[in-house]
Amino acid sequence: MLAEPSKSPNERGTPSQLVGSYLADCRSLVLEEIREFIPKNSRYQSVLYEIMLDYPMREAKALRPALCIAACRSLGGSLEGVLKSAATLEFYHNAFLIHDDIEDGSEKRRDQPTLQRKHGVPIALNVGDAMLALALEPMLDNTRLLGMGKALRILRCVSRMARESAEGQALELSWIRQGRFSLCDQDYLRMVHKKTSWYTFIAPLQIGAIAAGAPAASSELLGRFATLLGLAFQIQDDVLNLIADEGAYGKEILGDLWEGKHTLILMHALTHAKRSERTRALSILRKQRPGNASPAGLERELARQRARGKLSASAFRALSRHLGAGRAEKTQADVDFLNELVTRTRSIDHARRTALVRARRARRLLDRLTSVPSVHLRFLQGVTDYVIGRDR
Amino acid sequence: MLAEPSKSPNERGTPSQLVGSYLADCRSLVLEEIREFIPKNSRYQSVLYEIMLDYPMREAKALRPALCIAACRSLGGSLEGVLKSAATLEFYHNAFLIHDDIEDGSEKRRDQPTLQRKHGVPIALNVGDAMLALALEPMLDNTRLLGMGKALRILRCVSRMARESAEGQALELSWIRQGRFSLCDQDYLRMVHKKTSWYTFIAPLQIGAIAAGAPAASSELLGRFATLLGLAFQIQDDVLNLIADEGAYGKEILGDLWEGKHTLILMHALTHAKRSERTRALSILRKQRPGNASPAGLERELARQRARGKLSASAFRALSRHLGAGRAEKTQADVDFLNELVTRTRSIDHARRTALVRARRARRLLDRLTSVPSVHLRFLQGVTDYVIGRDR
Repeated sequence: MLAEPSKSPNERGTPSQLVGSYLADCRSLVLEEIREFIPKNSRYQSVLYEIMLDYPMREAKALRPALCIAACRSLGGSLEGVLKSAATLEFYHNAFLIHDDIEDGSEKRRDQPTLQRKHGVPIALNVGDAMLALALEPMLDNTRLLGMGKALRILRCVSRMARESAEGQALELSWIRQGRFSLCDQDYLRMVHKKTSWYTFIAPLQIGAIAAGAPAASSELLGRFATLLGLAFQIQDDVLNLIADEGAYGKEILGDLWEGKHTLILMHALTHAKRSERTRALSILRKQRPGNASPAGLERELARQRARGKLSASAFRALSRHLGAGRAEKTQADVDFLNELVTRTRSIDHARRTALVRARRARRLLDRLTSVPSVHLRFLQGVTDYVIGRDR
Repeated sequence: MLAEPSKSPNERGTPSQLVGSYLADCRSLVLEEIREFIPKNSRYQSVLYEIMLDYPMREAKALRPALCIAACRSLGGSLEGVLKSAATLEFYHNAFLIHDDIEDGSEKRRDQPTLQRKHGVPIALNVGDAMLALALEPMLDNTRLLGMGKALRILRCVSRMARESAEGQALELSWIRQGRFSLCDQDYLRMVHKKTSWYTFIAPLQIGAIAAGAPAASSELLGRFATLLGLAFQIQDDVLNLIADEGAYGKEILGDLWEGKHTLILMHALTHAKRSERTRALSILRKQRPGNASPAGLERELARQRARGKLSASAFRALSRHLGAGRAEKTQADVDFLNELVTRTRSIDHARRTALVRARRARRLLDRLTSVPSVHLRFLQGVTDYVIGRDR
């Protein structure tokens, strides 16, 4: 479909079928491409490169490469000219997934144990770093394929993308560390814009536009499209985490509640909860997810010894620091309470409406893109419905 | 000294003083440079960019930038043309330190708690990722300063460097995970070549040569120099970990034994141990290092506080009772046994001799470098002694 869009739209079935097959085509193209850059038969296969292929080979959408390819081709660029950049984006995406899973202590990814659950944190972290290193290599080929000027602009965009993602992640991690949940929608939107929209939508679409040599106006319009759609995408992700069918979703259902993740849904629920519910919810959210408990009673024993003067203030502080990870842990009942609160306050409906409004605005923006009708443009149009209609 | 090497060698004191002041000069130049690339007054200061400056601002040698600058300038290149690349190397180095400290579960870095001890693993990991993102930015300026051709070759070298480091790290982590200690010297040398030599010596020197526009022969010679010196450097690092003065060293003394790190010293000790000692040593090495949040981490903290008299004997006993026992984690006695074994087999002497031979060979190679006498060349010459004579 990508190489030769010869058939008429009708022959290609519904828009959602088109999105599905376009994604599938792009996925096989980009997998082939990243395999080109992953060493084969090296001494490091079993300790590095086989593990590196684990996440990319699990069932996935390959949304980022598809967006990049569609943007480039709908603006008149060639497939060959954009494939290297698509490979770079897929490397970054998978490296981010690995590191995010460590940071969030996630258990499942794409329906299987996370990489750090399979291989431990050290190896998983290093595999992510190796992917970030490999991510640079396809971009070096861009100089030959696109010329120095475009290659450099793409590199600049990738560098910005990586920084934006880290800033968004820093924001969220600091909220978690501080146990901060008094946030307004604006705080959430900024975090998502940086953490998700940038590397999932903004960079792929803008890099596609650069590869195509599109005018600044097209790139700017795609940037606004991406910002709206990125938000809708993340909100839908938050919704799915609560209500998806576990088999299709591939991640841990209710994982966000266990992790105390900041979502539009949770913010809405906290705002609309009764005062007593809010107090209870906040105290639950500040508990850790179970996993790294300290021995029961140790904290109490420390306090007792300190009170009896058997322990200096500095020793107490030093020992307490060791217990940091052992603070109270969430229970199943805690998570059930949060889940019921979210349901009672109709926070999922609120989130869905918010996503829908954004996706529709994005769809309308696309009508203003100067581009001849093509399967690639129809994919971008179809993606606006797909983002909020998907089940994984 | 860097800008105007007007004085004669005699006026500059001993070679070791020259190395010291050259390093100090480079350090202040590169710190200024990386500050240029770290956002100031952004919304993300406290959650990201201030933490990012933590490791670079701790007392450090800045060896990599100095090697890069010296290679460039001794081969006729300008300071301005190499400074951006030096900044990139310093970003990578610090990002690697942060991620390595997480992977190794290290407690101290440059005489202070490691980043993950201060801020937790998630934030530390993300700060490392943000540094890897920022590391790309100075290289974008190279196109303006050095032209597209050189800028691209430098980028290619950096990309290779990051991959080599990850491969070396993968090798070591897999040995640790498999509890594998039957290694020959060649295994160790390959691991060090990838994990340490590449990003500490090979890439800095070769990037300096590229920036200077040096002929291939010079670059190749510096590559061999770097390989020899990198090995000497890592072996000296392993020696220091066992015998250094903790204040000067800045890392945790005996940390390598706690972590069960594969060093030339340990390999030698295992080879020269009596059979019963070897069996006991292997069973110790296959135990985990006590985790910071785990009971055994507390055990060590308790012992430390007790030794410092900050904890009464009764409080110590009461708290110890709360700690579980019988995990497969190393104890102080285990580490003492390993340390004694290393001493008895004279493995440190063996390591020192190996390092010395490599450093001398490296020094002789340098005489064949086509370069006019300069403070930069004298720095490179002095570094060969410095590497094996340093105390931190």
